[in-house]
Amino acid sequence: MIDLPTRLAELRDDRTHGASELARMALAIAADWSRDCPADDPAELLNQLRRLAARLTDLRPSMAPVANLIGNWRDSLPDDPDRPLPELRETAARLARLARAESEAAFAKTASDAAALVANGSTILTHSVSSTVREAIHQLRDSSVKVILTESRPGLEGRLLARQLSEWKIPVTVITDAAMALFLPRCDLALVGADSITSVGDVVNKSGTFLLALAAREHNVPFYVCAESFKQRPPGMPDPILEEMDPAELGVPDLPGVEASNIYFDVTPARLVTAWIDESGCRREW
Amino acid sequence: MIDLPTRLAELRDDRTHGASELARMALAIAADWSRDCPADDPAELLNQLRRLAARLTDLRPSMAPVANLIGNWRDSLPDDPDRPLPELRETAARLARLARAESEAAFAKTASDAAALVANGSTILTHSVSSTVREAIHQLRDSSVKVILTESRPGLEGRLLARQLSEWKIPVTVITDAAMALFLPRCDLALVGADSITSVGDVVNKSGTFLLALAAREHNVPFYVCAESFKQRPPGMPDPILEEMDPAELGVPDLPGVEASNIYFDVTPARLVTAWIDESGCRREW
Repeated sequence: MIDLPTRLAELRDDRTHGASELARMALAIAADWSRDCPADDPAELLNQLRRLAARLTDLRPSMAPVANLIGNWRDSLPDDPDRPLPELRETAARLARLARAESEAAFAKTASDAAALVANGSTILTHSVSSTVREAIHQLRDSSVKVILTESRPGLEGRLLARQLSEWKIPVTVITDAAMALFLPRCDLALVGADSITSVGDVVNKSGTFLLALAAREHNVPFYVCAESFKQRPPGMPDPILEEMDPAELGVPDLPGVEASNIYFDVTPARLVTAWIDESGCRREW
Repeated sequence: MIDLPTRLAELRDDRTHGASELARMALAIAADWSRDCPADDPAELLNQLRRLAARLTDLRPSMAPVANLIGNWRDSLPDDPDRPLPELRETAARLARLARAESEAAFAKTASDAAALVANGSTILTHSVSSTVREAIHQLRDSSVKVILTESRPGLEGRLLARQLSEWKIPVTVITDAAMALFLPRCDLALVGADSITSVGDVVNKSGTFLLALAAREHNVPFYVCAESFKQRPPGMPDPILEEMDPAELGVPDLPGVEASNIYFDVTPARLVTAWIDESGCRREW
């Protein structure tokens, strides 16, 4: 039996996975709840599943893939009170698993679309860690690419990406976040992922992405964003909340009148984006 | 007696003081050497002092204030072989002390010129630590200003500045270097110092200054550079060397194919500078 409160709390508190991975976790909960939730008849089951969909979306309100994938799943539930209950349970669970598989396929296709843009021997600059960018680089491991990556304060997740690329034998140079403008002139492209993309093509991503985009424009280096279409914020979704994380992560000494501010995300305007890449390919205008 | 080799080695190896402070250290060496150097006659003394000037300048070739202040001192030495040796020694030492005092006066005046630009209640964003910016903020301590400052990787010297401002009871918010673009819209101005300024007004300063200037232009926030005129690179001085410091400062794990690059300085183009402030005031065109 699914332990729903625990699973929901895990989803709510997760700080290590990206938005798409969290959406797939939400779909896994939906599949398990379809099978296990208390319901005596089809109408009651559909009611339960729709309420779960609302709760899942509310748990991570700033995560577009959760809203999109769970919303699609909810909308695809057959509104058919005459079906046998076990069949309806199985259909709902299957639809959730299908949505998960679609999300994974979109992720893989987006990564290969991004990899296709990168010429042999290119030097790529990336900021923070995006699973889609990491997968694109993985697909480029025999293409003599080099990667310059930022350490990405405060979490320093750039070091984790460096370790992964080292295992794939891809040459890596790690720089401070502040050095992005200095290193762009020796790069062929900047490539980042996105937490979400707004309805006008603005890119919500790790703090510093906006600076990278400004520096890329300054140096005439193309600035690419790869994010599967599920990351597009649906119309009517509220503006992205730029969540403030624990200021203690900055390690600032406790002093009178001194505070730290630790906002993880910024919003890069669409006009600074050379192209957006998703599972349908590459678009140069939003 | 001056221990010249030790004093020269200290000057060569100093990584904690700014360029102007190093220039004043060089002038202190010049004053002491004027008094103590071996010389039997005025011509030999002048020869010794000119050789010292060349050595001092060569020790820190990328530091414009050293070249400027030591060069000015050398050029001011009286070319008068008929003066008594003790008087010539005293004159040379006095000229070095005078140049030091002029440098200090220029520093203080530059800081007060910068402070004069800042309206009561302003929020100032600064990056890294400049002694001139720090002094300007000190002069603003009763003007209800707030300061947002970057931690400034890899040395995290922003924490030291936060401690100083806390003692002066100036409210401080510390942010990551990557968050500069995010916080500029809530600032009235960006204010930085400079390591040196090139003959066309480009600004050599801590890595990340270029990104701050790009973000300031993007957000229409004025970007001010305060640096006494001794920091202007003299015509004919070679292009600034963007020194690479110890990559170990980035703390990147030792992995095959992974290197760190730790360049401390970048060069912000003059066209991104709203105004340059020195001891003569504020100029809006170079």
